[in-house]
Amino acid sequence: MKALVKQAAEPGFALRDVPVPTIRDDEVLIRVRRAGVCGTDVHIYEWDDWARGRCVPPFTVGHEFAGDVTQVGSLVSDVRVGDRVTAEGHIVDGRCTLCRTGNAHACPYTKVIGVDRDGCFAEFIAMPATNVWHLDDNISYDVGGIHDPMGNAFHTALTANIPGAAVLITGCGPIGIFAAGICRAAGASRVICSDVNDTRLELARQMGATDVVHPNELEALVKRVTEFGVDVVLEMSGVPSAIHQAFALVRPAGRVQMLGVPAKPMTFDFATELVFKGVTVYGVTGRRMYDTWHQMSSFLRSGKFDPTPVITHRFPLERADDAIAAIKSGAAGKVIFDIA
Amino acid sequence: MKALVKQAAEPGFALRDVPVPTIRDDEVLIRVRRAGVCGTDVHIYEWDDWARGRCVPPFTVGHEFAGDVTQVGSLVSDVRVGDRVTAEGHIVDGRCTLCRTGNAHACPYTKVIGVDRDGCFAEFIAMPATNVWHLDDNISYDVGGIHDPMGNAFHTALTANIPGAAVLITGCGPIGIFAAGICRAAGASRVICSDVNDTRLELARQMGATDVVHPNELEALVKRVTEFGVDVVLEMSGVPSAIHQAFALVRPAGRVQMLGVPAKPMTFDFATELVFKGVTVYGVTGRRMYDTWHQMSSFLRSGKFDPTPVITHRFPLERADDAIAAIKSGAAGKVIFDIA
Amino acid sequence: MKALVKQAAEPGFALRDVPVPTIRDDEVLIRVRRAGVCGTDVHIYEWDDWARGRCVPPFTVGHEFAGDVTQVGSLVSDVRVGDRVTAEGHIVDGRCTLCRTGNAHACPYTKVIGVDRDGCFAEFIAMPATNVWHLDDNISYDVGGIHDPMGNAFHTALTANIPGAAVLITGCGPIGIFAAGICRAAGASRVICSDVNDTRLELARQMGATDVVHPNELEALVKRVTEFGVDVVLEMSGVPSAIHQAFALVRPAGRVQMLGVPAKPMTFDFATELVFKGVTVYGVTGRRMYDTWHQMSSFLRSGKFDPTPVITHRFPLERADDAIAAIKSGAAGKVIFDIA
Amino acid sequence: MKALVKQAAEPGFALRDVPVPTIRDDEVLIRVRRAGVCGTDVHIYEWDDWARGRCVPPFTVGHEFAGDVTQVGSLVSDVRVGDRVTAEGHIVDGRCTLCRTGNAHACPYTKVIGVDRDGCFAEFIAMPATNVWHLDDNISYDVGGIHDPMGNAFHTALTANIPGAAVLITGCGPIGIFAAGICRAAGASRVICSDVNDTRLELARQMGATDVVHPNELEALVKRVTEFGVDVVLEMSGVPSAIHQAFALVRPAGRVQMLGVPAKPMTFDFATELVFKGVTVYGVTGRRMYDTWHQMSSFLRSGKFDPTPVITHRFPLERADDAIAAIKSGAAGKVIFDIA
Repeated sequence: MKALVKQAAEPGFALRDVPVPTIRDDEVLIRVRRAGVCGTDVHIYEWDDWARGRCVPPFTVGHEFAGDVTQVGSLVSDVRVGDRVTAEGHIVDGRCTLCRTGNAHACPYTKVIGVDRDGCFAEFIAMPATNVWHLDDNISYDVGGIHDPMGNAFHTALTANIPGAAVLITGCGPIGIFAAGICRAAGASRVICSDVNDTRLELARQMGATDVVHPNELEALVKRVTEFGVDVVLEMSGVPSAIHQAFALVRPAGRVQMLGVPAKPMTFDFATELVFKGVTVYGVTGRRMYDTWHQMSSFLRSGKFDPTPVITHRFPLERADDAIAAIKSGAAGKVIFDIA
Repeated sequence: MKALVKQAAEPGFALRDVPVPTIRDDEVLIRVRRAGVCGTDVHIYEWDDWARGRCVPPFTVGHEFAGDVTQVGSLVSDVRVGDRVTAEGHIVDGRCTLCRTGNAHACPYTKVIGVDRDGCFAEFIAMPATNVWHLDDNISYDVGGIHDPMGNAFHTALTANIPGAAVLITGCGPIGIFAAGICRAAGASRVICSDVNDTRLELARQMGATDVVHPNELEALVKRVTEFGVDVVLEMSGVPSAIHQAFALVRPAGRVQMLGVPAKPMTFDFATELVFKGVTVYGVTGRRMYDTWHQMSSFLRSGKFDPTPVITHRFPLERADDAIAAIKSGAAGKVIFDIA
Repeated sequence: MKALVKQAAEPGFALRDVPVPTIRDDEVLIRVRRAGVCGTDVHIYEWDDWARGRCVPPFTVGHEFAGDVTQVGSLVSDVRVGDRVTAEGHIVDGRCTLCRTGNAHACPYTKVIGVDRDGCFAEFIAMPATNVWHLDDNISYDVGGIHDPMGNAFHTALTANIPGAAVLITGCGPIGIFAAGICRAAGASRVICSDVNDTRLELARQMGATDVVHPNELEALVKRVTEFGVDVVLEMSGVPSAIHQAFALVRPAGRVQMLGVPAKPMTFDFATELVFKGVTVYGVTGRRMYDTWHQMSSFLRSGKFDPTPVITHRFPLERADDAIAAIKSGAAGKVIFDIA
Repeated sequence: MKALVKQAAEPGFALRDVPVPTIRDDEVLIRVRRAGVCGTDVHIYEWDDWARGRCVPPFTVGHEFAGDVTQVGSLVSDVRVGDRVTAEGHIVDGRCTLCRTGNAHACPYTKVIGVDRDGCFAEFIAMPATNVWHLDDNISYDVGGIHDPMGNAFHTALTANIPGAAVLITGCGPIGIFAAGICRAAGASRVICSDVNDTRLELARQMGATDVVHPNELEALVKRVTEFGVDVVLEMSGVPSAIHQAFALVRPAGRVQMLGVPAKPMTFDFATELVFKGVTVYGVTGRRMYDTWHQMSSFLRSGKFDPTPVITHRFPLERADDAIAAIKSGAAGKVIFDIA
């Protein structure tokens, strides 16, 4: 089969012909139809410090996808050949104390597809049956293929108290844009989005942002439309200046949900930015298993949240370089591979 | 001034000319513009067992209203003459342990206007400044006048986890209808409303219910559209058969919010209806002070929730008998008095 | 092997020689050392209405136990021969929405050992590896054998906010007595226990109750030592009069945790007992998987909670009738079988 | 009356004869018996950057105290002459959105006694009646006089889930030492305390710490006694190296409660220290009004928490320099003034 492979410890991906994966008794084989391209894939493509420290080539890249089940292991009882599915790409041990007490998303034994083992930028992928998530009939492969980053957005937004809240989203990459739509659908009274990129701000507005603004105008806006600051910030950028704005503009006793990660350590004033304000901060990693997935399916089913406008670019696997370039251009919403 | 008075221990209200109230140093005087008529007023009008046990005539009736401040006491600093306001009608002691630890809505020393002291079916009412809630400029007196029952609906809905939830509302009086709109605005994936009255069901649909149904068709509907039952029930009827449906149709480990009150004790099977299902039940009394009010203002401000369609009848104070009759007919949404 | 069997649809247990269970690939075989006898076993022994409606003889009885692993299936990776273990007796499907979103304790597909399939009053039992819970080296088989009912007590107590709370426990069977010790160890400021039986009250006092009292003196005591009632009630009796006391004596906006189940429907006044008081009720079923188990092991490890005084009687399997009689006498704390 | 006054914008306190405060109608006058000396007082004494930026001499210093009410304003109904009391030293506006929705501890209009207005290092202090907290008869003035810092400890500890938790307390000043006792009384399975000072560690052990350790041995200890790290950290030091340890040693998806404040901005790696671990951080400011006070009184009443061993030094007001020196020596637990 065709697969996009990180072949060696150097920049780039290679399109290769590789064997179709064989599955274990508790796994299923999935024919991949769509796969989303993520900032993590860009890190691996560019072979930056993080990638060098984490990944061991060669391996097939990609962790966001949807497709059809074509084979099931002998122990699998609740997934069938022909099922339309997506999957949680974090493969956890399922038996450690964290997994057994509702914190599987923080399992220290997690293996991520496309990072720690073969991923989904390929015609087929093998997945443990426990990680498979079924798609409703009316959910397209396109939308199925971006459940992973949408799940990040749902996790970030819905672990805060959104109904009635004034929400600030700093950073309008695809996850921030999804979050704008989720917050508005969940009853946020105000969804303020900031980014330096007008294309992204326009997508955020289209998804439900009530206010879109450049970072240099953000403080004035928040001061004008809130009493003491926003109730909740969803920090989606990882940019130090945005992180400082997040803590400056959240109201006392408010909540900052941090999904974005700065590339390196930064200077932070715990006294004035966090402690004296009585702020709560929640670090968002992955998706809650499987509360987040259940909420996501419920929202999609309700018709109140449609992520399709966020998908702005689609490519075949053969044009991986173009896909990566589209993300790096800053002009893209969500970029996907159209595989089969 | 004109006031609708419970004159004696017998059915009916009397329109009387009474003195304008004098205010204490920590109170304000409010010219009443609109006042909502509530089931509680019907109990007092009919002088039923509950009313006989609680109320001591003579007193001015009515506890839902909006108006303008015309006078402020010498100790009042944050309400001014001319302010457009509504008010929390539960006057609590503010100093007991419950009041001081976030449970003022359950203060055992509560006095309710129009029940335990003079109320708002009159041209003027005196209120403690602490109970006053300011209206935004764009909120009409009509909407201001129904903040109390809307607040019951907000309290009932938003103390459950609504985003993404399948919600069942049993009983579509005005509060149930408000709740339908609130739940939909707060991201409920499904808002199922049941009532015996088609007029009320139609109002519920207009406010955002995704499914409206008679009680005898409710079980089949819930079984069809949910996997194990609804995530949350808002019980708004107080009817024993509806209460049994609430517990039958909530999913295991789900949540039942009870606002409706049965007129008398009823038979209940704690084992199968509550304990074995692992259900959580929350008894809703009043409005959280003042979290509920803040949420309500946020929703109104956001433009995602407009309660005006629920107001179906309006009368002058002179037509109190007609107002009560409209409520008893079952054909009304919210009935209000148009006072000045 | 020896096993205590419900042989036919009639009262009594029979000690039989039955084959040692064979295990599936995902199961382990456990040599049973100790097994706790529960009220549920009494229902099955007596073959009452509930038992007749639920159980299908013949089957081996018993669901509380500890022992050593003697064999593991080929798919089992984290349990080894020789491990000292107990187990969660509720075998859930693990894949339904409830199981996947933190509510496995309420899984509608639950099979209970000793009720729906062969149990632990036998020399060996087969258990899914996922249900096995390891015992620390210093935890005796005696204590291991009563993890199931202790888990009910932990679930009931620790899903309320206990530190600093005034707690009332109505009903001092073994689970109520365990709960007294748990609440005291978790910082309850007051642990009031009520029961009609002085032996049980004495055990409750020994475990940490600050006040023990007969039901007819309970109201006076609570009124004397609290301001508005207790913060939390753990209802462990299932007796209608105790349930009414629970709701009468909890403070406004307090919490009632219901584990006890009345044998049949009872009369309840939702208006005054629950709604107007703003009470929250939580129905307790099973143990949270596996949060409750983790908390239980933590408490045992800390040395702050020692349940051994609650074990008052021990018998060999041959004396099952005496074990059942001891429970029915009301003079027993926890009754266990000493098997090997 | 005698008062310890910050006379001018320079180091030191001056003992002065000043007029007894006059009270407003909603205030009470309290004869101060004991007053606690706090790190904040040291900052004001030394006139460091923070003090220079915040305080405007001259004013009476001190914010922790207990005493007797000697006079009450005409509007005060629930405090009487002769009452034994302490008080919340944060005077909030009581009417802003934060105050009205359960977040008074974060009120942006807060005035702190001894910082923003005259304090309690004096024979008398005027306090708003709303801030007064009554002492039980059996609570000494000594213990009453340190309710403010104990309240910080209760706030920090009990807004985390302590029963059964493995807790790490970094920094054993008086508040850290109080927290050790609170956590142990609230059912923590393990209370690990770290500090560089052996006197403080010994006090922590005396109050209930299960393990006391120097920071350079902390990591090894936590790795030995926990599986993935501690469940909860209470960061009480404000020392950057301790803050890094807090985040390194909390388990994935754990909770860090931050009370300590670094003197200036520090370098922090949000990616690895917070986001990827899925940690929740809560900034602790003041005491929750008045949930924290109610919990504190409940703990004291229960007999499970006795803070008196923490009080190691007492001085008359005349020896203010010695009191400050005792704190700066690092050899002190809690230092108090014995005033009358």
